[in-house]
Amino acid sequence: MTTAAPDTTPEELDAVLERAAAAAPLLAALPASERARALRAVADALDGAADTLVPVAMAEAHYPEARCRGELGRTTFQLRLFADVLEEGEYLEAMIDPADPDWGTPRPDVRRLLVPLGPVVVFGASNFPFAFSTAGGDTASALAAGCPVVVKAHPGHPELARLTTELVVAALAESEVPEGVFALVNGFEAGRRAVTHPLTRAVGFTGSIPGGRALYDLAVSRPEPIPFYGELGSVNPVFVTRAAMAARGAEILDGYAGSATLGAGQFCTKPGVVFVPEGADLGALVADFEGRAAAPLLNDRVAEGFARGVDALSAHPATEVLVRGREGAEGWSPTLLRTGLDSLLEHSEDLLTECFGPATLVVTYPDERRLLEVGGALHGQLTVTVHGEEDDPMAPALLALGASVAGRVIWNGWPTGVAVTHAMTHGGPYPATTASAHTSVGSTAIRRFLRPVTYQSVPQPLLPPELRDGNPRSVPRRVNGALPTE
Amino acid sequence: MTTAAPDTTPEELDAVLERAAAAAPLLAALPASERARALRAVADALDGAADTLVPVAMAEAHYPEARCRGELGRTTFQLRLFADVLEEGEYLEAMIDPADPDWGTPRPDVRRLLVPLGPVVVFGASNFPFAFSTAGGDTASALAAGCPVVVKAHPGHPELARLTTELVVAALAESEVPEGVFALVNGFEAGRRAVTHPLTRAVGFTGSIPGGRALYDLAVSRPEPIPFYGELGSVNPVFVTRAAMAARGAEILDGYAGSATLGAGQFCTKPGVVFVPEGADLGALVADFEGRAAAPLLNDRVAEGFARGVDALSAHPATEVLVRGREGAEGWSPTLLRTGLDSLLEHSEDLLTECFGPATLVVTYPDERRLLEVGGALHGQLTVTVHGEEDDPMAPALLALGASVAGRVIWNGWPTGVAVTHAMTHGGPYPATTASAHTSVGSTAIRRFLRPVTYQSVPQPLLPPELRDGNPRSVPRRVNGALPTE
Repeated sequence: MTTAAPDTTPEELDAVLERAAAAAPLLAALPASERARALRAVADALDGAADTLVPVAMAEAHYPEARCRGELGRTTFQLRLFADVLEEGEYLEAMIDPADPDWGTPRPDVRRLLVPLGPVVVFGASNFPFAFSTAGGDTASALAAGCPVVVKAHPGHPELARLTTELVVAALAESEVPEGVFALVNGFEAGRRAVTHPLTRAVGFTGSIPGGRALYDLAVSRPEPIPFYGELGSVNPVFVTRAAMAARGAEILDGYAGSATLGAGQFCTKPGVVFVPEGADLGALVADFEGRAAAPLLNDRVAEGFARGVDALSAHPATEVLVRGREGAEGWSPTLLRTGLDSLLEHSEDLLTECFGPATLVVTYPDERRLLEVGGALHGQLTVTVHGEEDDPMAPALLALGASVAGRVIWNGWPTGVAVTHAMTHGGPYPATTASAHTSVGSTAIRRFLRPVTYQSVPQPLLPPELRDGNPRSVPRRVNGALPTE
Repeated sequence: MTTAAPDTTPEELDAVLERAAAAAPLLAALPASERARALRAVADALDGAADTLVPVAMAEAHYPEARCRGELGRTTFQLRLFADVLEEGEYLEAMIDPADPDWGTPRPDVRRLLVPLGPVVVFGASNFPFAFSTAGGDTASALAAGCPVVVKAHPGHPELARLTTELVVAALAESEVPEGVFALVNGFEAGRRAVTHPLTRAVGFTGSIPGGRALYDLAVSRPEPIPFYGELGSVNPVFVTRAAMAARGAEILDGYAGSATLGAGQFCTKPGVVFVPEGADLGALVADFEGRAAAPLLNDRVAEGFARGVDALSAHPATEVLVRGREGAEGWSPTLLRTGLDSLLEHSEDLLTECFGPATLVVTYPDERRLLEVGGALHGQLTVTVHGEEDDPMAPALLALGASVAGRVIWNGWPTGVAVTHAMTHGGPYPATTASAHTSVGSTAIRRFLRPVTYQSVPQPLLPPELRDGNPRSVPRRVNGALPTE
């Protein structure tokens, strides 16, 4: 079933991007309500084809059925959330400042809204064949913004990408969305060319640090650089205070094992390093890891990368192997490592590095006040988690440390599981992402594919409807600086 | 008076950025109301020192007194506008999504707000010694966001930069803002080092395309890339339709001459190219340009660059020199050039290039429908202007062309003069700026120096006050997806 798709040729890629560019102004001109209708049609089509799509995803990504069905549900939920965002309209950040001779500086009538950037290239992720791939979050938010999308299929699930594309294209056509708004391309070289193609206006990417950085470098070294929204890598540190360990140690370590091995550790939010007090009893944790079944990894490339990473961590003189995972017919069983705080700080570049797959590192610390030293050793993170008690002396400083390096700070929970909601941030400073001002999950992800345009002294009939007096499209607007109202 | 300041040494720069980084969390923790008070204190201090600052600006930038006083007023207005933005608080984009078991995907309590990036390096502009320099828009918006600022002084006005810095530092100290939040550095090499310094978190820049691109390339090739908000260059095309020319030709050409020569053409929004119908009477325009007095340019470097640029345009085989400006004791008199639409399209890379100073190009077109071909030849622009009539057949398409390439679209006006208000966009696709999602003028400029952080399941007392139940800081918030309210 996982027959590789033939690579898209340069000529085919040109044609795809020319169609996307030609469709861009037509898509941008569609009222938001029609784009919302189209997104819902896509969601309905995918839900309706679940029984076709899920077995393909299972075969290509080696995930169990429940995971695939859950992820498909998340994907269509996401598409419908962006439809809601479009219907509300605040995402346009519409503002109207009428001419005002008393303003303090010269002020003609100026009216602003956000407009779509143009064709967006989306790189599907290996580990979320639905939710971060062909019709995933980047695609949903870019289409919602009014940008045509060209998806570079992940080679790990080519058939699912092809089937999904067929459904998306058909649903968009039935919704009378202009032809050319959505297309799929295949092949490493086609991906590189798509990033440097003059008609591409932005890129969305979820993947590894080396792969993402190489494409980022291409995007920013173009004659006309474009935004590159890459979600690359994170070790998602978890700090367990002495008080929390004393109060709930067994429960915390149990949760840790579950989160670190979920989906065979193939989450960008996997807790890759957890800090526990010296003397904490790790016996049950070791037994838990030893008892966990092996699980297949996504594909050979992921498996090879994981084998290299886990070998390096296991062989590192600063680490102790508590449980050595092994590769067998069923896949990899999980690996548990340990080091001390001083060793971690001394070898932070080696040890605070994402190892994508079922491996995680326990760091034992002597004095919990010294946990704050970890802040200086951490690069940007998607998440930081703190397990503490409410009156915990360490809690405020650890939460502040988290906010200083991460896009999401979690209390007494686990980083795996990223709620699709308004207030979510799935982002963070580099290398968690290449654009820390944004999120790739949640309703504000749409902002990545928009830019502001101001209309100065433009007569009513020539203004976009969203900016006309009387507000014919009922868009929330900030008028004369007052908070937006409908 | 324009004694060059000594270059900041690498050791001094390290110390400046270390102080800024140490001050960053303290500044971020100040309530927004206290940052607002500090911005107003800075504005008051600058206004109070006008009689000291203005003569220095006049001497260093060769601008007349009224221009300098006006620009200082714009600068302090801008600081106070950001104080208002802080007090309102919507800029935080605070959102609260309570836990919801019925949401459709797992949803714990998640709460989001924007946090400051950390130390920002600001490059002062040559042509706005106040409003885009030491205490200008980038500085005001970064300080408002809660980011320490290190200004790289423009070498064209070192003494004004030094005096302004003294006033800013004293006013911040009196407002009990942490020491280290603001500093000035000097020298080309210090600027480069500041962009690549590991403690720098973002850069604001206003200047030339080559200079800005070189610094942008440094920012994005760091081991940890940082956002570079550069406003680089624009030719600000103006389209005059046949109907507008017939109705108001003389008035339009009069306005054009005024806008193109304002401030000796040294505005990033100078109309560098204007499209008029073939057969339009340019006699009065030529006479106007011939009669205009010479004006000094900002400094020798600008004068040299202008001389090269105007020589190249004048000598270009596709242009006709209508008025050849000359350099004399009083500075440069303005240059007026002409070409035809076909020649422009054929040589667009040569002719649609910013020539910073008093020179501008008239393009005569045969059939106004062919103006739409210009869209394909234009790079990103700060502004596009359309002079038309309300029932003008060309108006909708030309305004759409404007919105597709520019950050601001002006009707029957002129691009010089950028209102400092909420709905303003001073930005646009590359090379107008390096970050088209943003503006460097207006209240939303603050967004450049912020990133979102989401708090998941964090108990009330450990949340930032802006996200606590009961809203103790009265911040507008989007709760459960509903529009923000106080």
